Amino acid sequence: MSIQYQSKLFGRTRKDINAEEVSINAQLLTRAGFVEKSMSGVFTFLPLGLRVIKKIENIIREELNNLGAQELLMPSFQSKEVWSKSGRWQDKVGGIMYQFKDSSGKDLGLAPSHEEMITDLVTRQVNSYKDLPLYVYQIQNKFRDEPRAKSGLLRGREFLMKDLYSFTATAAEKETFYQSVHDAYLRIFTRMGLRSFSVEASGGAMSKKYSHEFMVITQAGEDQTVFCEHCGWAQNIEISRLKKGDKCPKCSSILKQEKTVEAGNIFDQETIYTDAFKAKYIDQTGKEQSIHMAAFGIGISRAMGTIVEASHDERGIIWPDQVTPFNVHIVVLGDEPELLTAAKKLAEKLSTELDILFDDRDLSPGQKMYDADLIGIPIQIIVGKKNAPKVEFKIRSQKEAELITMTEAIERCQKYYVKKDIR
Amino acid sequence: MSIQYQSKLFGRTRKDINAEEVSINAQLLTRAGFVEKSMSGVFTFLPLGLRVIKKIENIIREELNNLGAQELLMPSFQSKEVWSKSGRWQDKVGGIMYQFKDSSGKDLGLAPSHEEMITDLVTRQVNSYKDLPLYVYQIQNKFRDEPRAKSGLLRGREFLMKDLYSFTATAAEKETFYQSVHDAYLRIFTRMGLRSFSVEASGGAMSKKYSHEFMVITQAGEDQTVFCEHCGWAQNIEISRLKKGDKCPKCSSILKQEKTVEAGNIFDQETIYTDAFKAKYIDQTGKEQSIHMAAFGIGISRAMGTIVEASHDERGIIWPDQVTPFNVHIVVLGDEPELLTAAKKLAEKLSTELDILFDDRDLSPGQKMYDADLIGIPIQIIVGKKNAPKVEFKIRSQKEAELITMTEAIERCQKYYVKKDIR
Repeated sequence: MSIQYQSKLFGRTRKDINAEEVSINAQLLTRAGFVEKSMSGVFTFLPLGLRVIKKIENIIREELNNLGAQELLMPSFQSKEVWSKSGRWQDKVGGIMYQFKDSSGKDLGLAPSHEEMITDLVTRQVNSYKDLPLYVYQIQNKFRDEPRAKSGLLRGREFLMKDLYSFTATAAEKETFYQSVHDAYLRIFTRMGLRSFSVEASGGAMSKKYSHEFMVITQAGEDQTVFCEHCGWAQNIEISRLKKGDKCPKCSSILKQEKTVEAGNIFDQETIYTDAFKAKYIDQTGKEQSIHMAAFGIGISRAMGTIVEASHDERGIIWPDQVTPFNVHIVVLGDEPELLTAAKKLAEKLSTELDILFDDRDLSPGQKMYDADLIGIPIQIIVGKKNAPKVEFKIRSQKEAELITMTEAIERCQKYYVKKDIR
Repeated sequence: MSIQYQSKLFGRTRKDINAEEVSINAQLLTRAGFVEKSMSGVFTFLPLGLRVIKKIENIIREELNNLGAQELLMPSFQSKEVWSKSGRWQDKVGGIMYQFKDSSGKDLGLAPSHEEMITDLVTRQVNSYKDLPLYVYQIQNKFRDEPRAKSGLLRGREFLMKDLYSFTATAAEKETFYQSVHDAYLRIFTRMGLRSFSVEASGGAMSKKYSHEFMVITQAGEDQTVFCEHCGWAQNIEISRLKKGDKCPKCSSILKQEKTVEAGNIFDQETIYTDAFKAKYIDQTGKEQSIHMAAFGIGISRAMGTIVEASHDERGIIWPDQVTPFNVHIVVLGDEPELLTAAKKLAEKLSTELDILFDDRDLSPGQKMYDADLIGIPIQIIVGKKNAPKVEFKIRSQKEAELITMTEAIERCQKYYVKKDIR
């Protein structure tokens, strides 16, 4: 694990940002030095932001690898020939696919998703029932020509996405895997610190068949979901016959209704793409059969934005434990050498098992505490002359700090992260 | 660590590939199931290939983090406004920058490199001498409209690259860091199993100032380098006054000459970009000063191709130890249950510390041995009825196999990887 000195960290905190930015996630992430917008819907991830992205990616990798899925990496460049087979080249996937010509006049597209490319690959890699089932995913940049990209990281024109595709011999096998991914998604969002509900939805531009969306409650949401806090039943209010105050059809608890953001979606694609690409397999009896397909997406940069929308207060971000860029924020108030030495010793001890952000900047105590709350690392340890040799131990999500010894502070950090196996 | 059963691995080996593919790297990587070409200069990395990419990335990360460099992630989409400041929008960076318009008519470019974007970012993030030096890098997709893309992974239109940028207060500090990166690059290529020489070169489209290229000897090379095997002195023959057989100007050994591939390059960019963007800092005396810049690239997918060009034989790839997709390839010949049980027990023991590829496919012994040599994992352990309870232990780069016990095989693998801390 590591110590990052804040005086060296690329990405400064700031008090004001471009007034045109209205979304809370982009405001807080920009002010706290996690991201920098370069154009509408397009962001740079500064070192703090990239650390969160990698935490999110690794949660997803762990859960998908446990299902037997394999990671690969497909390119962004797409050919007209391949996308014409599904018919999606012609309408630019409902107008969102960037298309242009290279210097030789050849048509190129940027992938808004990868159904066509993965299905084309499957036609060459899968022949027999022995090659199935196949579960493959990637973590990769997507490009979508979104007419509205005003929600910070929630709606990007260029954004990081995890897309998983399943190919199975039968519809029944597909449904079993669909359900496993459904359950894995709920675990993934829980680990990100998000409470999510799955709702049935239409497939939109990506699928003609039924699908599920995973909704997270936040005021930034564009959808309204009616849901049961008790058993997890939920529906989009546009298709639901029930409303706030009604009884849950599954457990009879009283239903609630909130604005929600879609954090992930899963699509049953039946044999739509595989038939268009003639992706077939030979079964045990020697007969050619259609391959059944489903697709499963999570927007990774979008998840980062959603987490901030769902977990902040008036002072700044409150990172959930498993996606925080650093585990502990040590803030040194004052520049006395003995104070700095004691704080560095604490940082070194903690850094054997945890990632530490160490505020050694030459700023006022008020500015440093302001920034620590803005950045939102779950544990703050404040080392100052006033309380020496004790330190202030503060959980970001709680109001009160405690005065404890450094040894106690180390024990608390271990209990918080290491013993729960969260790092 | 892990066990991957080959019967489940996505990416099949094959005997013949598209006849138009002339490069050895693309031929072998495609036949062995590491990559799949989707169009000229554009490849999918299948699970085996992505494992190699991640090994290469992590070697680079380790070495650059040791220099105090910080990782971030910039987008591919670039604005005309920003790139016009350097003048490179107008000539499309010598014709290689993809440019097009989105549905609203706005100009967009795909980044062939990121000097403009990082310098623009630095204007907002750096004010004072206290903010310098700054070393930032990313591992990210680049796009270049290459007229010729016929060398497999060596020349891509879409390719993975590590680009590092340094910003320093003085030219002297820049030169010190330039030299540290120079030395780190030699370590990085050595860890990839590549013998590299640095040569002075012109900056090409990326820089007007002097630069160094890192050359790797292989027959696929487009350049010719005259070099000294003894002390590492080297020059491109186009600018060298010396030739094969002459004496080395540094150590008087006899010079050699070989075809080489450029595996990395570093550019002194002085204040060209920073002045164009008015990226200034305030020095200790309150005076405004220019920021000095240098840029450092390594093509990651290109490195994978270069490794294959430099390390293969007539049977297939020979992966260097630190970039191999798996550490040990266990090949089971025969389908007797007791044979499979013994091999799985071996795999489980090894997998506590190493990554294992386990060939459990229902194929002939000849086909399995053929594939193992083609895939090129450094250690093969062949478990067959003929030699039971002993196994054949074979180093891929050596001709002879040895008959040893499973316990001895485990010890050999530990000695090969774990004790050298290579995994």
